[in-house]
Amino acid sequence: MYEGAVGDLIEELGRLPGVGPKSAQRIAFYIVNTPEADVSRLAQVLRRVKAEVRFCRVCYGIAAAELCRICSNARRGDAIICVVEEPKDVIAVEKTREFSGRYHVLGGSINPLEGIGPDQLRIRELMERLRSGEVSELILATDPNTEGEATATYIALLVKPMGLRVTRLASGLPVGGDLEYADEVTLGRAFEGRRTLEV
Amino acid sequence: MYEGAVGDLIEELGRLPGVGPKSAQRIAFYIVNTPEADVSRLAQVLRRVKAEVRFCRVCYGIAAAELCRICSNARRGDAIICVVEEPKDVIAVEKTREFSGRYHVLGGSINPLEGIGPDQLRIRELMERLRSGEVSELILATDPNTEGEATATYIALLVKPMGLRVTRLASGLPVGGDLEYADEVTLGRAFEGRRTLEV
Repeated sequence: MYEGAVGDLIEELGRLPGVGPKSAQRIAFYIVNTPEADVSRLAQVLRRVKAEVRFCRVCYGIAAAELCRICSNARRGDAIICVVEEPKDVIAVEKTREFSGRYHVLGGSINPLEGIGPDQLRIRELMERLRSGEVSELILATDPNTEGEATATYIALLVKPMGLRVTRLASGLPVGGDLEYADEVTLGRAFEGRRTLEV
Repeated sequence: MYEGAVGDLIEELGRLPGVGPKSAQRIAFYIVNTPEADVSRLAQVLRRVKAEVRFCRVCYGIAAAELCRICSNARRGDAIICVVEEPKDVIAVEKTREFSGRYHVLGGSINPLEGIGPDQLRIRELMERLRSGEVSELILATDPNTEGEATATYIALLVKPMGLRVTRLASGLPVGGDLEYADEVTLGRAFEGRRTLEV
């Protein structure tokens, strides 16, 4: 239907997550009308990402060198490790400025339907890190859904004999949200976790 | 916030139409986890589009050579020209298989708020084509919105002295849609353009 390279570009763009056929077409026509220099910059950075980006040897987050910026930062505490599913979760936690410890990226969550068991995640590597004995708390910041909960429970049981503090992020109402729009599970959790108001 | 090339990639992706910061991040992390060969193919086709794709000398649609496939097809009729706003509209009309004439791509619609007047569109080039005298009908298939209507009216007035048939696509209810969900303007147009049922 499309002439020359445009059809191929639409096909390649359609493989990206969240890009449907209509978006792919829209982006392709945008590319056709965009100056060569801008498109060239995009093509170049795509190749650079593949050439330069790797996973940190310690936490498996995204790194530009052997160690990521967080693992190589001597000013961060070694006593607390925050366990997350994906590298983008590291960024999300960093944005809160609430945490100054280290991270461990599992690379997903336990999902039997998709054939992902504990062995497909970096749980063995986490246990290795804990064996050093420097860690006193493990924050299990996996997603608040079935798979994330299962992963957190699995890890909690696994590290129980080590006697360190294992915590999970609080569930509750999103700040700035409306109570009436909260789903019943979230609202239930918010009740469970209610705090005494200090006035 | 992001290490190395990932931040640059998110920035570049965020410039694409319909790609917000969250989607850009999602695509970037997908790229990080995608095999080098696939990413290389995407980077390559981006460059190829800029190198190979140009606009047809006659209709200004997308072409791989000096003339597009439609303009260089001797089996299509020269008597009817379908005027559209963008190259993607050519594809949309072609998909209907209802039209076997030629196209003319204006490159947009008259939009005074964005500083687009008739001189910014390929209306002069259209008039030049009509002067050959081979054309008997002009289908004004610009979008059914204010700018598209204004553009159609402008062209209709301009070609009036030439005495050729000037038509506009029918407005009405979308096929497969529900009457109750149609907006009042569309429903009004559907009444205006009602047809006698031949049974």
